[in-house]
Amino acid sequence: MLVNTRNPLNIGAAARAMSNFGFARLRVVNPFELAFREVRSAVGAAPLLARAEEFKSVADAVADCSLVVGTSALSRRSPEHVVRELQQGARLVRKRLAAGNVALLFGSEKRGLSNEELSHCHWLMRIPTREEHRSMNLGQAVAVCLYELARNAKPAAEKEKVSRAAAGDLERLTSLLLEVLQASGYLKTALGKTEGKRSAAPMAEKIRRFARRLNLSATDARLLAGMLRQMDWKLRTSAKPD
Amino acid sequence: MLVNTRNPLNIGAAARAMSNFGFARLRVVNPFELAFREVRSAVGAAPLLARAEEFKSVADAVADCSLVVGTSALSRRSPEHVVRELQQGARLVRKRLAAGNVALLFGSEKRGLSNEELSHCHWLMRIPTREEHRSMNLGQAVAVCLYELARNAKPAAEKEKVSRAAAGDLERLTSLLLEVLQASGYLKTALGKTEGKRSAAPMAEKIRRFARRLNLSATDARLLAGMLRQMDWKLRTSAKPD
Repeated sequence: MLVNTRNPLNIGAAARAMSNFGFARLRVVNPFELAFREVRSAVGAAPLLARAEEFKSVADAVADCSLVVGTSALSRRSPEHVVRELQQGARLVRKRLAAGNVALLFGSEKRGLSNEELSHCHWLMRIPTREEHRSMNLGQAVAVCLYELARNAKPAAEKEKVSRAAAGDLERLTSLLLEVLQASGYLKTALGKTEGKRSAAPMAEKIRRFARRLNLSATDARLLAGMLRQMDWKLRTSAKPD
Repeated sequence: MLVNTRNPLNIGAAARAMSNFGFARLRVVNPFELAFREVRSAVGAAPLLARAEEFKSVADAVADCSLVVGTSALSRRSPEHVVRELQQGARLVRKRLAAGNVALLFGSEKRGLSNEELSHCHWLMRIPTREEHRSMNLGQAVAVCLYELARNAKPAAEKEKVSRAAAGDLERLTSLLLEVLQASGYLKTALGKTEGKRSAAPMAEKIRRFARRLNLSATDARLLAGMLRQMDWKLRTSAKPD
């Protein structure tokens, strides 16, 4: 619910965010610009904006709502009200939505909600912005509130769909990498640095751990194996003339 | 980080949201409007906007970042990338912020991030908007992402102790890998399979994405670079007799 909004672009932006997050009923109280319905900022939300309901007073606009929540940048503004941080407030709003209409009030860009307007609210909600710069752009504040309201409303978190490389694949990859490193002379060099006398075992372990740290998907393991096989082939065939 | 932003008002709105939620370093890549710094929408964030750093390419802009996260409205867009929902992604970003710079990339209002731009990203993050209306206003998307990042940013999140490879190192590693693949004949072969006529650009992007998916620590990036340099040297010196 937008009260005394000055800039019609902000009404459009609010409509867009509502559409993004699945909220359908926009109510507007005394907008400064009467011709707000065709504003271009409502990208993709023109129907929602066209259906917006207009009211002359907050009292009329909230008449059928069982919970009225005001938004405020200033926690000190209204000592008469309980002020909840967005996350906590959104939880309560979600509960109440199951039982009836809930109104979320946003005041004018310049002054926020007046004391009269605030007096219609059951409690206030504030977005946890920095002390030094509390005041948000109206469209952005609406988007953040609706995001928080819609968040977690869904059943289950998405699973990671990428399937990981199996240990067997990684082991084959390790052997392949060791072969290429040997063919390129890297192993000799590296071993040389750490006393060439020692067996190749510590280096193989080092390479094996390295291959595990890469955290490869099954697809990427195949991709890398293809690269290494080609390098190995080229190193072996080119090296013959030596 | 804002890439190819068309409307300077959105840059200002992003700056304002950054200031609201306590993020200080704005980077801008190829803005359409060069005179974006005085834009009025940065209410209260003029100093932050004035300090914004400008870059000619994403590669330069992310060079000192150890994690690069792209934002995307479309989960189907990039099957090569892991796409995480904002809430889960933000948790990972917060962990990584303890260990180094993290870049959050937002593409142009019209097209989002291009494939080349996406290829610099380790993974993608999406805001859980409705299927039917996914695309958000840029300034609102920035606000929602930063709200989620700042939310619950308790003092002592568990730190990640391993320092990650910076994007600049990864970019050098990518070039090195491309060289070795070319020297070994892999690139020709792979390009041949997918119609040799096409330019090498898609392959370079493919390899770049692959290098990011490896999730290398700074130490492992150096280790791998050493291996590749040796392979490259060997391939080039052995190949001469052909």
